[in-house]
Amino acid sequence: MITWNNLDTLESFKELSNVKKVNLVEAMTGENGAERVKNYSVPMAAGLAYNYAAKQVDDEVLEGLKKLAKEAQLTEKYAALYNGEMINTGEKRLVLHQLTRGQLGDTVTADGVDKRAFYVEQQQKIADFANKVHAGEITNAAGEKFTTVVQIGIGGSDLGPRAMYLALENWAKKNDKFKMEAKFISNVDPDDAAAVLNSIDVAHSIFVLVSKSGTTLETLTNESFVKDALKNAGLDASKHMIAVTSETSPLAKSDDYLAAFFMDDYIGGRYSSTSAVGGAVLSLAFGPEVFAEFLEGAAEEDKLAKNEDVMQNPAMLDALIGVYERNILGYPSTAVLPYSQALSRFPAHLQQLDMESNGKSVNRFGEPVDYVTGPVIFGEPGTNGQHSFYQLLHQGTDIVPLQFIGFKNNQMGTDVVIQDSTSQQKLCANVAAQIVAFACGKADDNRNKNFEGGRPSSIIIGEQVNPASLGALLAHFENKVMFQGFLWNVNSFDQEGVQLGKVLAKRVLAHETDGALKVFSDLLNI
Amino acid sequence: MITWNNLDTLESFKELSNVKKVNLVEAMTGENGAERVKNYSVPMAAGLAYNYAAKQVDDEVLEGLKKLAKEAQLTEKYAALYNGEMINTGEKRLVLHQLTRGQLGDTVTADGVDKRAFYVEQQQKIADFANKVHAGEITNAAGEKFTTVVQIGIGGSDLGPRAMYLALENWAKKNDKFKMEAKFISNVDPDDAAAVLNSIDVAHSIFVLVSKSGTTLETLTNESFVKDALKNAGLDASKHMIAVTSETSPLAKSDDYLAAFFMDDYIGGRYSSTSAVGGAVLSLAFGPEVFAEFLEGAAEEDKLAKNEDVMQNPAMLDALIGVYERNILGYPSTAVLPYSQALSRFPAHLQQLDMESNGKSVNRFGEPVDYVTGPVIFGEPGTNGQHSFYQLLHQGTDIVPLQFIGFKNNQMGTDVVIQDSTSQQKLCANVAAQIVAFACGKADDNRNKNFEGGRPSSIIIGEQVNPASLGALLAHFENKVMFQGFLWNVNSFDQEGVQLGKVLAKRVLAHETDGALKVFSDLLNI
Repeated sequence: MITWNNLDTLESFKELSNVKKVNLVEAMTGENGAERVKNYSVPMAAGLAYNYAAKQVDDEVLEGLKKLAKEAQLTEKYAALYNGEMINTGEKRLVLHQLTRGQLGDTVTADGVDKRAFYVEQQQKIADFANKVHAGEITNAAGEKFTTVVQIGIGGSDLGPRAMYLALENWAKKNDKFKMEAKFISNVDPDDAAAVLNSIDVAHSIFVLVSKSGTTLETLTNESFVKDALKNAGLDASKHMIAVTSETSPLAKSDDYLAAFFMDDYIGGRYSSTSAVGGAVLSLAFGPEVFAEFLEGAAEEDKLAKNEDVMQNPAMLDALIGVYERNILGYPSTAVLPYSQALSRFPAHLQQLDMESNGKSVNRFGEPVDYVTGPVIFGEPGTNGQHSFYQLLHQGTDIVPLQFIGFKNNQMGTDVVIQDSTSQQKLCANVAAQIVAFACGKADDNRNKNFEGGRPSSIIIGEQVNPASLGALLAHFENKVMFQGFLWNVNSFDQEGVQLGKVLAKRVLAHETDGALKVFSDLLNI
Repeated sequence: MITWNNLDTLESFKELSNVKKVNLVEAMTGENGAERVKNYSVPMAAGLAYNYAAKQVDDEVLEGLKKLAKEAQLTEKYAALYNGEMINTGEKRLVLHQLTRGQLGDTVTADGVDKRAFYVEQQQKIADFANKVHAGEITNAAGEKFTTVVQIGIGGSDLGPRAMYLALENWAKKNDKFKMEAKFISNVDPDDAAAVLNSIDVAHSIFVLVSKSGTTLETLTNESFVKDALKNAGLDASKHMIAVTSETSPLAKSDDYLAAFFMDDYIGGRYSSTSAVGGAVLSLAFGPEVFAEFLEGAAEEDKLAKNEDVMQNPAMLDALIGVYERNILGYPSTAVLPYSQALSRFPAHLQQLDMESNGKSVNRFGEPVDYVTGPVIFGEPGTNGQHSFYQLLHQGTDIVPLQFIGFKNNQMGTDVVIQDSTSQQKLCANVAAQIVAFACGKADDNRNKNFEGGRPSSIIIGEQVNPASLGALLAHFENKVMFQGFLWNVNSFDQEGVQLGKVLAKRVLAHETDGALKVFSDLLNI
């Protein structure tokens, strides 16, 4: 029997508040620190490992977190989710994104179909389509091969797929998996679509229109923009566009598209990279086999999240530590810092995933909660960030917990030795150094050069950014966010907070405004 | 006589804490709200205006802020800075970035030269060089024109120039000012340089090596990477590279470069976009005239920052409101939200500018301060962000002050009418709607659909992103950060917090580690 309780009503949470806080400087200094780095590590899928040695926890805090996990029924709630209970209570929907990459529990039937079979069927349809495009069986009207794929979508239809594409682009080039260049149009700012269209050869481009409802304003507007461009080039738009949408959307059976692939209401935009939303563009760009490896990595990570033993469940542990930092230690934001240029937009994806899921003030019953929920998430790749905002992270007045990601190997295999080390070694040396610098600090009589330390971080370490490790990484954070939503007792799968702006924007465009909104509209020449 | 006092010692700050807080929902509703939008606006340079109607201020709070500005001697401190006093006390340096775009006060002499004359001379040298490249007078060894310029730099040598390039790229293409494509290599991750080199024709590329000291590890490493690539292509590297550095650096008189242009120790990296650091790449990409317009916009904005009347000084007012939000209202972060795809990386630049400048815990005398200083800064362009992290901004448990930027016109002039409005109108309607949605909220009996409002924002409104308005925007934020540094009594112009990580990374590469650092190094295969 699952009960959904607010975090501050749980006995184990109250107990945890009273557990002695860890002095991170002491804990990470000397041999004790070395032992922590060796022991405070959990294996993940695809050769990754989650290391939390530099987090402000010790065995006593971890015991408290285990109790919290149990009392909050995290394992049971995850099982309820993947077995098809209506976890998204606000919108009265199941939550099935894990089902796009594996069957974790019971057969889930909805809308009269086996949903796992439905997702697999869509993947297969996409794979067939992509293979035909690559083989030159599906071509433009002149019988020429398509060379470029352009995703038209916004939010989850853009950030996740774009981050995944950028993460694998150079890996694919190096490993002979690169099939087509991908571009992305998202913003309603007409300069976005115009710039992308100027940068491609439209005659050899295939456009993927992604909108679950088929009504997203930005996406439909950009579709028209693209159709105009195709028409102006003397091309038949319907021979250059495919749709990814729900079966009930107006796009589903339209003759305007070469093909349509389906997602459904049980996959939120920010969780849709492993559905047809990511599947179409990534299968076209890299081939269906690469997309399948990506799904396998995610599926393996999803399985690990089932583990009732917190110490063997990296997503659950990461989630618990995050809630401890947010609600007991009182830290208001988290930085995501991948030491890999391939992951340049991964923080932007996590920013949506996390902040849109858990940036809520009411619990799943619509009652206000008396504690803080999702933090601000931001980040840039290292070492770039070191030369930018790390100053504040090291010496600012607020403590910002850090989530590092590092890989032993680069993707392209080209490197250079300077001062007896490769660039890859320098990259890795920097992330190792940063963890210790943040945790331990360094005393200096000149207070301006003094580092207090005590700034907690974790690191996920892997061999290389490749399809499987990327899938595992994606699923890890999805599951982390899910578990945190369970702990905060919020619905992580709706987003009512985006509605009011949409309503008011429509009113502005209809010139039905007064007061401040009218004057702002005038100032902006609308 | 200037005195440097901590914020919490100022009488006016204590008074301000006691001023009645503004109820933003009430203030922005109805005719009162309309009046605020009309009146709470300050003209900026290049047709911009700073509107703070939706900030949590009223005439009483503004009176308090004026007193604070006076007691903190903001105008006098700015004058001291531009007249050449040693404001960067930590590094014992003058702070002269404003001098790269205009003479605001006395002649400033340092190192035996008139510094304004020195900066102008460098600009002229760069302009001559760029004109010769564009005219085909400076070519590759085969006598062919260069088509691409690649900046090699990190931190301030990357983020600012890259953000400025992206901001003007499409404007330049539309207005026949586009001369050469620019690319940027920054990360020590070897995949960064490899990917850029794979995307260009090295035989027709000119590389700009940017390092003030000539010793930045990432930059020198990437230089070697590029030199290898040039050598492998059978090219003479010294015919493809220029340097931007200080006159005393090892790069200054090296035969390895076609030319060297100079900056100096009085311009911090994050303030260097208007120096030779931005000047070389932007003049090559768009021509020296465009760079000159950019400087003029910045110079005009710098002049406005001299105004003793806070209500006519947008940067000072913005700074004061920010400190009020941070230190009296207690908000820990700020989001920068430009409604313009051209400004896609402007938030990343501001993130460095702000967090590296004011993320400090000691005052300019090296004494710990008892109040919070610089906030976390993050942001993405709208409308993209609306479909991402805005959920938390609207309904999360923390209040995040917002800095919107919007323009009446797009850059490329291509647009499409859907549902009776253009994309540009939709873009502007959205930013207007968001301001009011955040400020006023909307009550709903379903608490999950309830918007509390009371979430403060400001907006800078302009005609278009062009060289002059971009320069004004850049200078506005530089000056805002400077004034906030004065208020917090910190040195905004050093960055000692980045040193410890560098020291430890060197130790890792030399295999001179023990404890936690040794184990992390092993885990990362260094």
